[in-house]
Amino acid sequence: MADFVVTTFDWVPKTPRGLVRDLRVRWALEEAGLPYRVESVPFGDRKAGHLAHQPFGQVPWLVDGNISIFETGAILLHLGERSAALMPADPRGRSDTIAWLFAALNSVEMASLPWALLMFANVPADTPSRKPLDDFLKLRLQRMEPVLSQRDWLAGPFSVADIAMADVLRLVDRFDGLADHPACRTYMTRATARPAFAKAHADQMAHFAAAD
Amino acid sequence: MADFVVTTFDWVPKTPRGLVRDLRVRWALEEAGLPYRVESVPFGDRKAGHLAHQPFGQVPWLVDGNISIFETGAILLHLGERSAALMPADPRGRSDTIAWLFAALNSVEMASLPWALLMFANVPADTPSRKPLDDFLKLRLQRMEPVLSQRDWLAGPFSVADIAMADVLRLVDRFDGLADHPACRTYMTRATARPAFAKAHADQMAHFAAAD
Repeated sequence: MADFVVTTFDWVPKTPRGLVRDLRVRWALEEAGLPYRVESVPFGDRKAGHLAHQPFGQVPWLVDGNISIFETGAILLHLGERSAALMPADPRGRSDTIAWLFAALNSVEMASLPWALLMFANVPADTPSRKPLDDFLKLRLQRMEPVLSQRDWLAGPFSVADIAMADVLRLVDRFDGLADHPACRTYMTRATARPAFAKAHADQMAHFAAAD
Repeated sequence: MADFVVTTFDWVPKTPRGLVRDLRVRWALEEAGLPYRVESVPFGDRKAGHLAHQPFGQVPWLVDGNISIFETGAILLHLGERSAALMPADPRGRSDTIAWLFAALNSVEMASLPWALLMFANVPADTPSRKPLDDFLKLRLQRMEPVLSQRDWLAGPFSVADIAMADVLRLVDRFDGLADHPACRTYMTRATARPAFAKAHADQMAHFAAAD
């Protein structure tokens, strides 16, 4: 089996380090023990060759043989189909994993990432226009709380859905947004205590630091 | 083959009508000519039975035999695997469709839906805290514009990715957010001119109106 190739930026500023989305792909590959290597594109100059792989000029993308895949969700699903360590093979387990993968990205992150953009921009808490996004995130976390208080992992065994959801929650936690949702925080802590996360995180930090 | 069962609310207020996400599922089922029926849960009272199918208390969910699926993205992928009218069967076409499906939901809608929440809340355009979200949406539409100016559909033939992306862009267009992105608007118009969209939209409007 040829190596998977993950492409990320050659360098990013210090603030996003540890949060760049190649982390989710590295984490999955480490969990599954799949062989891979990491390549880089310039952060400062998004050329046509970059956009041909990733139309939004972002990272990561994954090359598997003659197929190039963008969108972290699509990459996680692709890897899930290649390793039972990432997605159960039975129809119901597979279906639940895919539903929770989309839930992480399209229900929780759709609320949390825009909220985090306002946090990064230092928009004060009492700004009236923050309320729709504060409420949106709270609504999602309130629904996740009973789910995560009753199970270790979203879809039975640990899966790509947990990689996505835990990493989504990490960004909320960075701005202390999980303080009122202890089950969400416990879940995130459980997921990021896994050796595969630690390896992926350390590798991303080292990758960007090497270009300083 | 048993009918697919799509569950939506029994009623919603007038504002979200035509935008409730069962539309995406109805649209896909109509495109594929798959047999289905529609069931309802109370809008005003989200009971435990509802949350067991849809943990966020939202709609829709899809029942296919003994499998119940939530998240519109997961449902579209599930239906795509059941009809070549919704997703190409070859590995590259399938992979491209899945990447664009995630792109619609996790790259474009993650910017556009929070932006639309501020529009619905009548947050004035010159509110400083709107800028991060205005910029986020503009960045995504600027990258979509050259893509959509060069092709009719995202992944070759029409697919579930187009159902998701076109419906995401409809909400932006509702607040005239596509004015500076003519290729995005032309694409959305092309997609929503399809008979399956018209049928799905009319059926959703009639479903909610019947409960007034």
